Amino acid sequence: MGNWQVCCKSFWCRTKNPDVRISLPAVCFVWQIAMIILFGAFVRYNPEVDAHWPTYKKEHNITSDSENDFYYRYPSFQDVHVMIFVGFGFLMTFLKRYSFGGVGFNFLIAAFGIQWALLMQGWFHSLDPVDGTIKIGVESIINADFCVASCLIAFGGCLGKVSPVQLMVMTLFGVTLFAVEEYIILELLHVKDAGGSMTIHTFGGYFGLMVSWVLYRPNLHQSKRLHGSVYHSDLFAMIGTLFLWMFWPSFNSAIASHGDGQHRAAINTYLSLAASVLTSYAISSLSAKKGKLDMVHIQNATLAGGVAMGTASEFMITPYGSLIVGFFCGIISTFGYLVLSPFMEKHMKIQDTCGIHNLHAMPGFLGAIVGAITAATASESIYSKEGLANVFELVGTKRTAGQQGGYQAAGLCVALVFALVGGAIVGFILRLPIWGDVADDNCFDDEVYWELPEDEESIPPILEYKNHMDSKNPDACMSESNFSIEQS
Amino acid sequence: MGNWQVCCKSFWCRTKNPDVRISLPAVCFVWQIAMIILFGAFVRYNPEVDAHWPTYKKEHNITSDSENDFYYRYPSFQDVHVMIFVGFGFLMTFLKRYSFGGVGFNFLIAAFGIQWALLMQGWFHSLDPVDGTIKIGVESIINADFCVASCLIAFGGCLGKVSPVQLMVMTLFGVTLFAVEEYIILELLHVKDAGGSMTIHTFGGYFGLMVSWVLYRPNLHQSKRLHGSVYHSDLFAMIGTLFLWMFWPSFNSAIASHGDGQHRAAINTYLSLAASVLTSYAISSLSAKKGKLDMVHIQNATLAGGVAMGTASEFMITPYGSLIVGFFCGIISTFGYLVLSPFMEKHMKIQDTCGIHNLHAMPGFLGAIVGAITAATASESIYSKEGLANVFELVGTKRTAGQQGGYQAAGLCVALVFALVGGAIVGFILRLPIWGDVADDNCFDDEVYWELPEDEESIPPILEYKNHMDSKNPDACMSESNFSIEQS
Amino acid sequence: MGNWQVCCKSFWCRTKNPDVRISLPAVCFVWQIAMIILFGAFVRYNPEVDAHWPTYKKEHNITSDSENDFYYRYPSFQDVHVMIFVGFGFLMTFLKRYSFGGVGFNFLIAAFGIQWALLMQGWFHSLDPVDGTIKIGVESIINADFCVASCLIAFGGCLGKVSPVQLMVMTLFGVTLFAVEEYIILELLHVKDAGGSMTIHTFGGYFGLMVSWVLYRPNLHQSKRLHGSVYHSDLFAMIGTLFLWMFWPSFNSAIASHGDGQHRAAINTYLSLAASVLTSYAISSLSAKKGKLDMVHIQNATLAGGVAMGTASEFMITPYGSLIVGFFCGIISTFGYLVLSPFMEKHMKIQDTCGIHNLHAMPGFLGAIVGAITAATASESIYSKEGLANVFELVGTKRTAGQQGGYQAAGLCVALVFALVGGAIVGFILRLPIWGDVADDNCFDDEVYWELPEDEESIPPILEYKNHMDSKNPDACMSESNFSIEQS
Repeated sequence: MGNWQVCCKSFWCRTKNPDVRISLPAVCFVWQIAMIILFGAFVRYNPEVDAHWPTYKKEHNITSDSENDFYYRYPSFQDVHVMIFVGFGFLMTFLKRYSFGGVGFNFLIAAFGIQWALLMQGWFHSLDPVDGTIKIGVESIINADFCVASCLIAFGGCLGKVSPVQLMVMTLFGVTLFAVEEYIILELLHVKDAGGSMTIHTFGGYFGLMVSWVLYRPNLHQSKRLHGSVYHSDLFAMIGTLFLWMFWPSFNSAIASHGDGQHRAAINTYLSLAASVLTSYAISSLSAKKGKLDMVHIQNATLAGGVAMGTASEFMITPYGSLIVGFFCGIISTFGYLVLSPFMEKHMKIQDTCGIHNLHAMPGFLGAIVGAITAATASESIYSKEGLANVFELVGTKRTAGQQGGYQAAGLCVALVFALVGGAIVGFILRLPIWGDVADDNCFDDEVYWELPEDEESIPPILEYKNHMDSKNPDACMSESNFSIEQS
Repeated sequence: MGNWQVCCKSFWCRTKNPDVRISLPAVCFVWQIAMIILFGAFVRYNPEVDAHWPTYKKEHNITSDSENDFYYRYPSFQDVHVMIFVGFGFLMTFLKRYSFGGVGFNFLIAAFGIQWALLMQGWFHSLDPVDGTIKIGVESIINADFCVASCLIAFGGCLGKVSPVQLMVMTLFGVTLFAVEEYIILELLHVKDAGGSMTIHTFGGYFGLMVSWVLYRPNLHQSKRLHGSVYHSDLFAMIGTLFLWMFWPSFNSAIASHGDGQHRAAINTYLSLAASVLTSYAISSLSAKKGKLDMVHIQNATLAGGVAMGTASEFMITPYGSLIVGFFCGIISTFGYLVLSPFMEKHMKIQDTCGIHNLHAMPGFLGAIVGAITAATASESIYSKEGLANVFELVGTKRTAGQQGGYQAAGLCVALVFALVGGAIVGFILRLPIWGDVADDNCFDDEVYWELPEDEESIPPILEYKNHMDSKNPDACMSESNFSIEQS
Repeated sequence: MGNWQVCCKSFWCRTKNPDVRISLPAVCFVWQIAMIILFGAFVRYNPEVDAHWPTYKKEHNITSDSENDFYYRYPSFQDVHVMIFVGFGFLMTFLKRYSFGGVGFNFLIAAFGIQWALLMQGWFHSLDPVDGTIKIGVESIINADFCVASCLIAFGGCLGKVSPVQLMVMTLFGVTLFAVEEYIILELLHVKDAGGSMTIHTFGGYFGLMVSWVLYRPNLHQSKRLHGSVYHSDLFAMIGTLFLWMFWPSFNSAIASHGDGQHRAAINTYLSLAASVLTSYAISSLSAKKGKLDMVHIQNATLAGGVAMGTASEFMITPYGSLIVGFFCGIISTFGYLVLSPFMEKHMKIQDTCGIHNLHAMPGFLGAIVGAITAATASESIYSKEGLANVFELVGTKRTAGQQGGYQAAGLCVALVFALVGGAIVGFILRLPIWGDVADDNCFDDEVYWELPEDEESIPPILEYKNHMDSKNPDACMSESNFSIEQS
């Protein structure tokens, strides 16, 4: 065989060698050192962080320390931070034997991703033209957390089927793609997307689905025994769900404009989330024998209302408008889990472990459309002249509201294109047989990448023994073979 | 039998049909649609949320966005939000097989309740006389969370014994009663109750106890096997306990007046809570053989200090006054679990699953009395003239401090009357045999309303097998009957 | 035998009587009553908490309630509060059968410690010279939480080996020592240590290690069966880890100066923590067969970056400086778990249950040195004249930057001396045979101090039975002795 054939063979029939003892430390060390060098070259404090702040205050006639952006945004930042690490992390602990991987890999890639995001977003959004440096502050770290959220969404689609090294690679490219996409949408097209329905959820969702599609495992059923939850793993996942649900108003309002902008974003998201809880429960109950609720729906679809308010939360969508958005997204998301996910797995070869299509991709898509419509109907009578300029920089001067709506829709297309093309490319990179991939019959198993404690799980052998005994013929019970089992 | 007899019979000998496949979705959909219509008709943004805020700022000479109420209250709101959904939710996961129901139904009814509370409280407290609409902002959503807290307390009394449809109905009526009761206490009587010792805890506690009393199940012992905790369910409950405990200072200060009011409420509650921890541990240890601590007391009685500071936290109760309140409430609450709960179950036919009498009803009652006494001793020398007017609107002008104390006591009576009468009526409504009630031997069992994962619980059969073996006569071990059990 | 001999014997061969039914309630009651009396004598509200605030505002030309320190620090306080009770509490639930003790005793001693800390810190730091009272506000309760943190660190070293009464005694002395040490470091030496690398972590860590050393148990291996985690206990511990990790920026910035100080402390800590995650994962993977990650490292070493930024977070250490600190501390801390902890247990007779040497003592020590170096290189060009005075009160006027660096190093020595000498003394006090000590074969067992629910743990007997059967000779299977075991 020629080299080319060998290469092709190993590419498609991926060798399964989940030993990451060299690759994982190498990736962590090299990339962390690269971060330090790049931060050394590029990243500085912004004037509200720098010790020169007293001078800056005087120069800009700022009379109180409470005008420092820190006090406007830090409480929301901490809520977002909890969503990223506890929210996403624990949401992914629902699998019976992949909870370590869910929360642990989430921790690893988010910690790397926020550093890389500070650089990438800095280069695109806030490079100081004078000295070529990136000036960071509280808004930068919120944005870094946002950026990482898109990669964690993608992780949800691949949960249990990829190695930590693959996840690091996916995060590296995911953050890069995100920063470019976000730059085009927010800076070039002047689209508004404070809570990231497009930039975070639509992009992250479809990006993850494309990666999952490329990494399709036809023999994943070999891991079926581990592809489910247990009672307590579902409760751990509820910790993630609830912290995401409770803090979503902070997520959508964290980088909205001071004053009414943040206030409105929080209230709208609060309402939308409440409505999606009721419709998620309703559809979940309606779809099952005896109306029994399914934890998968409760853990996920209840959050759809927050995703869908990502774009419009800062707009004057009205309280009942928010409820309507939440109402429909709860329904659609639960239907996704009931109908679309099985369909996609069977007919489209997309194995979406956490159902990111139902929780992020679809509601994000809808949220972008809701945002476009709401923007297109904006007017001075609704917003006041100054209010309109606060929310949409260009409407009233360089654009009509209708045009803004069109740009919002264009932003959605940009997010989709980046997600689909980028996801396909990154998926193929992840197929390279060098990332410590796991075999089909070891998916969803923490055993592969974690030292597991001895525990209750040492009990199942007994069960097997019991089952074995059950299957015995009563007449055989006196035979030696019977007891040899007990003694084996 | 005549119709009347059939009706009576089915009323008292409730038919047990826990299928909620029609009723639960129907209730969720219809009520959510009703919410949307009512929000459309009544609910609007207040001036601090509306995009006209820049205009409003100018008209009212507000110089900084930091004066928007959002920045005064939003961090506290998020803490309260965590208490409602994670605090109450996880506190109710302590039962070994009702953790899904505890956290899941809490989620459902709170999400419905906050919407209904925005309407009810809006109609009573903040209906705009000009255009007949309700103007909402951050304070409204804190109040909605508060209102729902009273229903979640009541849920604690009925935990495991009612269907989700019954809970929705209880929440509908509970929120309604709360809004009226709160209107009378706060608006008509001008009683101060920032943290809701009366309005939330006394009302919610006795309301729940009355419902439990009406729904008394003489054969509840049939579910005894499930009426307890396991090691890890007690740990999940500690998540709830600790988030409630930590954020209680935010709860009591969230709607206190700006500046010293919020500051004082937080400090007083912090101290009271600390004291009730020590006395709860002390009584728990004192009451058990070898001084062993009981998790039920630690999970609940430690919180009594927060409940009891609900009224007085904003007052000048002094730091040591707060400690004294916490000291006694920790003792009383733990004694409640040791003595009163068994007594009430045996002699008063009140089955109080979570011990809401000990955690909410009694400490709330005491807190109201503490508040009345503290108010009655208020004076200008303690508060300053302006400070007194800030805390008690009418004292110094239309009322003496002693009169205010009297009104505070009257407020407590109103809360009690609403709780007892309202609870009785709602209890009888919940006895109607149409709500998907559960049978006595299926209480405290998630199996009834949830699709449960297969899990570790498949192990118990082995235990039974083992126990069976243990009870065998040694001589019988060779007999066929012995082995037939192994093979069954 | 003379009295002296008896006394010596009982001192060294400690009697093991873990009944705390008298001692624990006595300690809780007496000390709580003492707190109430001392608070009555000494503790009052400060002017920002007192109802005279409107008057105070006018006198000091404060125009807005938002200038009340409450709004600058309360959100950070709540984050710190979560770290103390959920962070430390759940971090210590990792043992399979000591989770109740971990989270429950943490709760008890923290609730006592914060009250005692308010008094001790008040007497040393903020005693009003006019009326001899302590004026408390939001900064006082943050400092009380900080003080308690040092005792909880020490608790981590003794986890599972001491009684709750011993813990209360340790907290009493720990808080006392802390307050004196802190007074010398911050007030006399004018050392800066906003996040407490020295005062909290170095002191708490070495204090706990000394106590562990004095309480060395040569036969601790008798409890080996319980000295490990199970799958779900590791997940509970991750709740603690993540809340500590996420809120550490609030910890280090909570009492930093308003404006840029708090802002910079948060950003620096955020970066340092992110870097230490990557290097912890790297070393953990590198050290194990097949690169498998160890939960002990993930739960602890990832936090080292926050500990190490305790002193320097407020300084102009630069973003890449923060990353470098986190980079090395993640490595060192993980190496500590791999190499130093086993070494210390074997050769130095220090049994450090949670590895506080690796997570707190070492990174705290390093953080103090980083702080000293950063302080020594401070200059007006980096900080501006006013900024320098804001960060280091005396530099630029009474001290050079180099001198400040020297004082910082001196502060570290003070913390060390207090920890080592104080820890030895407190350790010997805890050896007195009156504190309800636990026997060597009952360490790490909740059974001793808690009423445990019946649960899954009733299963192990079967396992033993199974193991017993496995070890039997096949020929012996028919003998009576074999079955007598099943029936025992």
